Amino acid sequence: MRAEVITVGTEILMGQIVNTNAAYLSKELSLLGIELYHQVTVGDNPDRIAEAIKTAEKRVDTIILTGGLGPTEDDITKSVLANYLGVDLVTHKPSEAKIIERHKDLDFKMPKNNLLQALILKGSQPLINDPGMAVGVFHQQGNHQYVLLPGPPNELKPMVENYLKEKLIEQDEQHQELLSKMLRIFGLTEAQLADKIENIIKNQSNPTVAIYASGGELKVRITAKGSTKSECEKMIDIVEREIAEEVGDYIYGYTDRGLASAVNELLIEQNKKITAAESLTGGTFLGSITSEEGASNVLEGGMVVYSTEQKINELGVSKDTIAAYGVVSGECAIEMAEKVMERFGSDIAVSLTGVAGPGRLEDHEPGEVWIGIAQRGKTAFAKEYRFKYDRNTNRERAVKNALNLTRRVLLDLSIENKSYIND
Amino acid sequence: MRAEVITVGTEILMGQIVNTNAAYLSKELSLLGIELYHQVTVGDNPDRIAEAIKTAEKRVDTIILTGGLGPTEDDITKSVLANYLGVDLVTHKPSEAKIIERHKDLDFKMPKNNLLQALILKGSQPLINDPGMAVGVFHQQGNHQYVLLPGPPNELKPMVENYLKEKLIEQDEQHQELLSKMLRIFGLTEAQLADKIENIIKNQSNPTVAIYASGGELKVRITAKGSTKSECEKMIDIVEREIAEEVGDYIYGYTDRGLASAVNELLIEQNKKITAAESLTGGTFLGSITSEEGASNVLEGGMVVYSTEQKINELGVSKDTIAAYGVVSGECAIEMAEKVMERFGSDIAVSLTGVAGPGRLEDHEPGEVWIGIAQRGKTAFAKEYRFKYDRNTNRERAVKNALNLTRRVLLDLSIENKSYIND
Repeated sequence: MRAEVITVGTEILMGQIVNTNAAYLSKELSLLGIELYHQVTVGDNPDRIAEAIKTAEKRVDTIILTGGLGPTEDDITKSVLANYLGVDLVTHKPSEAKIIERHKDLDFKMPKNNLLQALILKGSQPLINDPGMAVGVFHQQGNHQYVLLPGPPNELKPMVENYLKEKLIEQDEQHQELLSKMLRIFGLTEAQLADKIENIIKNQSNPTVAIYASGGELKVRITAKGSTKSECEKMIDIVEREIAEEVGDYIYGYTDRGLASAVNELLIEQNKKITAAESLTGGTFLGSITSEEGASNVLEGGMVVYSTEQKINELGVSKDTIAAYGVVSGECAIEMAEKVMERFGSDIAVSLTGVAGPGRLEDHEPGEVWIGIAQRGKTAFAKEYRFKYDRNTNRERAVKNALNLTRRVLLDLSIENKSYIND
Repeated sequence: MRAEVITVGTEILMGQIVNTNAAYLSKELSLLGIELYHQVTVGDNPDRIAEAIKTAEKRVDTIILTGGLGPTEDDITKSVLANYLGVDLVTHKPSEAKIIERHKDLDFKMPKNNLLQALILKGSQPLINDPGMAVGVFHQQGNHQYVLLPGPPNELKPMVENYLKEKLIEQDEQHQELLSKMLRIFGLTEAQLADKIENIIKNQSNPTVAIYASGGELKVRITAKGSTKSECEKMIDIVEREIAEEVGDYIYGYTDRGLASAVNELLIEQNKKITAAESLTGGTFLGSITSEEGASNVLEGGMVVYSTEQKINELGVSKDTIAAYGVVSGECAIEMAEKVMERFGSDIAVSLTGVAGPGRLEDHEPGEVWIGIAQRGKTAFAKEYRFKYDRNTNRERAVKNALNLTRRVLLDLSIENKSYIND
């Protein structure tokens, strides 16, 4: 099967949003073994959309259009395709009912345009939009399949995952199973990781091994092609073990489950509760712990102590510590962690203090961060980090490193360069 | 001038990296008044690259190819274009010298392939690559301009900014200024907004008006074309006023500045401090306030009180309130806001309590959220929201609505359906 992705949207053509849908679709399609040779983007213009469909028909059997299914005047993709193929648009009743239902509780009248989102091509199969309102379309005509997907990524992704993939697999006669596993890695640079698994990557053919880096995190995807799922699984297992041998405990998880998820899982397993006192990250660490389902089992609360005054008054860090070492110090971080653990009666406590930037603070550079860890019955410690990013990336990296440090502590793994207070 | 961006790279076609270059180039070109109707992506395949150039020649005068200028076997864009146009490749001496110079200090021998990066089309003008090694190309032949840019964004951007733009402006005889303004809107659905400004959108030609929706927020872009910037500004002003008349105080800001930024700005203007007590959002509201520069002027700290016990013990919400109304109630929200305001001595305090999901809590549905607001010298109130999303979208919408509610309170704007406690 060969496919082409046509992204529709003037906002993408004007560069106001980045086309992440094309990347997502391309990745998912290639994992299904579907070949892709072109991606095309056109604006919300009927002639150019139709021309792009015509061009794609000559090159591929499956034409996937994304964007332009919404309720506004600009949203014309559906009507352009229907018009081009000479097919009527009809209402998909369950989608219509859902749109009406969603507006029932709102205290304003639903604009009629909203119902346009329930239209599908006559004779086509609907692709359900669970989180959103615009229904997708899977339409077969002649030798081609036409797919219509919504523009918002949070609607497009579940539609592809839960409804489109199975339809594409059904269509694909020479279908081979393709299975992927994503390993998640934290604490190495991309170059360090590439170095460690250089030989595995060099000698790859099936399974393939690819490294992805983003937001300070690394992923390794292992993809195997075989005649059955279990054959693929076996092939992946072998390569995974080879990689684990080189990368060790920097691997912390799989697929979409991030560091917060790994930490929450460990806390639940160990029946422990966590808390945190946050300065520069201002609640973001606590926010990431509570983003996970079942967070109430592992966290009762925590504190944001942004000002020096509140570190003393509300949290109870001693004035002397701050006078002697300042707020950007291992000493302050350790006391913050100890105090917040006491306050919330948790088994482990994390503290974050430092300089987010862009300005300096008390003679410390932006990106200078101390993370403290207190644990019931153990000596508290702090670890220093020096990030060199902008304000919000510094904050984000601080949170990720705090999560990783927590994970390593919970697993009793080695931690370099700890600072203790010797009293 | 009309241009087309052709992105070359199998890694983009496979979805392994997101095509941020296309977005960047599109934005920059449209700001120069250059019209763009298509973006195309092809893999590192000579036939498909040549075919894409041929197609583009029929549609536009300026063809911009990005990617494939590096030293590896895959990097064929330059030779494909030279071949296609029947032009020789020659060495650009200063680039060659730079490549040799850069390798001088390294403790390995420079692979000879590296010098391929110094090649340009005979008769073309080089586009200098200050941070990198692959020189770019600006080539004129017949009625067309051909531009070759490197793939890495950190090399492409300075090349565009410092060298390409001036060349494009020189070429563009009918150069017109193009100016955009983005209005940010919260509290309406996309369809409601479309309804309100339907006539403005229907009658648009210059300026153009477009609506964008994502993450529960809306943006309206007004784009004007004129002979000078100030002419564009005047045209935008008129349309902005028309829109403001219809949309009113749902408009909260401009361009990249989000709700947290609007709230922080108001707090600074009014010389007020804020705090928050968060249950279901677990620190995310405080995190968004502190994500802004200068947050220390408006926030000293706040609390995450996730468990009922800590709402009582740490924050001081009365047991009786919770026994009578439960934690998912306006009464609890109001007390949380009042108590945290007291604790942190702020001028305004926000509380969030409710059910993130996916499970129910105390007979309340996922997405049921109460936001409380306390203000010094005023009666505290709470407002109920019912979100129907997944856990993290419910949390995110709760934070955005809390920010918007804070904004409306600070500006003394009307708020519907407030709940008070009558005691």
